[in-house]
Parts: sequence; structure tokens; C-alpha cells
Amino acid sequence: MTRRTIKALPITAERFAPFGDVIVAGQVPMTTMNEARFQQFANLANVDIDPAGAVSIGIVRSKSPTSFPYHFDMVERHPLGSQAFIPLTEFVFVVVVARPAEFVRVEDLHAFVTNGKQGVNYHRGTWHMPLIAMAEGQEFLVVDRSPAQDNCEELILERPAVLEL
Amino acid sequence: MTRRTIKALPITAERFAPFGDVIVAGQVPMTTMNEARFQQFANLANVDIDPAGAVSIGIVRSKSPTSFPYHFDMVERHPLGSQAFIPLTEFVFVVVVARPAEFVRVEDLHAFVTNGKQGVNYHRGTWHMPLIAMAEGQEFLVVDRSPAQDNCEELILERPAVLEL
Repeated sequence: MTRRTIKALPITAERFAPFGDVIVAGQVPMTTMNEARFQQFANLANVDIDPAGAVSIGIVRSKSPTSFPYHFDMVERHPLGSQAFIPLTEFVFVVVVARPAEFVRVEDLHAFVTNGKQGVNYHRGTWHMPLIAMAEGQEFLVVDRSPAQDNCEELILERPAVLEL
Repeated sequence: MTRRTIKALPITAERFAPFGDVIVAGQVPMTTMNEARFQQFANLANVDIDPAGAVSIGIVRSKSPTSFPYHFDMVERHPLGSQAFIPLTEFVFVVVVARPAEFVRVEDLHAFVTNGKQGVNYHRGTWHMPLIAMAEGQEFLVVDRSPAQDNCEELILERPAVLEL
């Protein structure tokens, strides 16, 4: 069986636009609030939850760090809502995504690495590798759809993928 | 004019319950996800946005730190949606809140200080002091209602309040 290697590129708003949003201060027109005591960067992500669901704020904490190269053979998507992951301390993480389609090949996958300050918001329906972290104890804030039931499709890749930093 | 001093108490889910949610890992039943590579703490906040609005994810960054004792004479509330503030690095912050009511006196105010890892979610309608930060450059993730127009009521206190740590 042929393996396919995916090399992660630095994430930018432009590169990630087909798949979702990059959540970071400084990329949108800035305003001020509270008598100019704060700079405000608003509407950084398109939170898109089906009306039958609610928006959930949760936290996930890494128990077992991932080492690279990382082998995986499954991607998932959430048909009922967008899903945002924002680091709660400064750390780098890696995402793998594919455009919405019924079927995904390894060749359709794109990998991106953050700079430590960035979060991501997967658009509703974007295929993605399940979340991984590079160190134990790292926490992400998660903004997605509640309940999670009936909102996750999994697809097993024909060929396993190998993710490299 | 008589000033009134408010002393901040350490925030806990129980103390803050009349006003909103404390957003932190570890306070709710924990599950695991992604083949147990992550601990998951779900539904940490009641995101409550009126159906005519959308959920916004934004970031605010402190430009000018606040020193204590801190004098203020205004509180605000958002009738159309809840509003969450989550620190994007580990830092302590202070909030002042009052229960929903048409009128607020200084005596109705409660102040809470976080432990560095906690965020807060003000319930829709909870009166609160506009956000302050204790150091320049601190960033909060904000999850609230978009657009912000017609969603902020301000109330000038009869007597200024003095907030102490």
C-alpha cells in the first residue's frame, strides 16, 4: 500500500479560506472599545450552527502528545455546524483539511501549522483530521454545535496519510 | 458624595451562578474524545443569543492597564445576548456584576477575581462593569452577539464605586 506524505505549510487567512477561518488578533479592521482601553478585533470566525442546535463553549485538554511523522487514515466532518479550536496558552498545532466533497483522497488533503497565537474555525462540512496536540496538557477552547449527536461523519482514507512538520 | 468600596472575592462557579458561567476545564463531568487523546469538558457556558443575531468570535487586546483601587461609575448590560471573555494566555482579571434589575445601586455590585485560568460568560441581561485588564497586551477571546448595535444599555451609578483587589 502506497503511503502519501503531507507537509504542513504555515497557516494564513488566505491559504485557509477554502476550509475555514484563522482566529487571531490583527487580521481585520481594528476598532476600540471601553473608552479606547482595548483594541477590538470583531467577527473573526463564521459561527454557523444549524437552528435546531445550540452554540457550545467547551475546553479539551491533551492527554497524549503526537509525534511526527504522524500516520492517520481517517477524516471527519460536521454537517450541522462550524467548529473552532483556540489555544488557551501560546502553542503551535497542526491541522489537516479537505474541501467539502462526498469523497476525499489523500491527494485532496492540505496541512497547516499555526504560529502559536492562532486558532482555527472549520466551516460547516469541511473535512478535517481529528484534533492532535504536540504536548500533554495543552488546552483548546472549542466553539461548536451542541448536541454533538448525529453531527460527525467519518471517512476512512483509501491510503493512509503521513503528516510531516 | 459617599464612595463605596467593593472588595473582589475569588470567583467560583457557585458564587458566580446568579450572574453567569465560569469557563474553565475541570468543573463539569469529563469525557474523552479522539480515541482518548483528549479530555473533554463540554457545555461550559450558556451561549444565549437572540435569533435575529449571530454568534461572534472576536478578540480584544488591552492597551492601557488598570491600577487599583479602581474608580468607576457606570455599568452596562446586553439585552440581546450573553457575552463570554476567555483569557488567551494565563492571566488574572477582575469582574464586577449585578443581578438583572431595572436599577442598580453600588450596594448591589459583586466583584470577583479569577485565578488566571478562568474565563467568564455573562448571562444575557447581567449588569457588569466594562472590561478592564491589569496589564497591557493581554488578549481575551470574546463570544457574544453580532451585530453589537442596539445591544448595550448603560447605567450611571448614583455613587461612584471603588474596586479593590
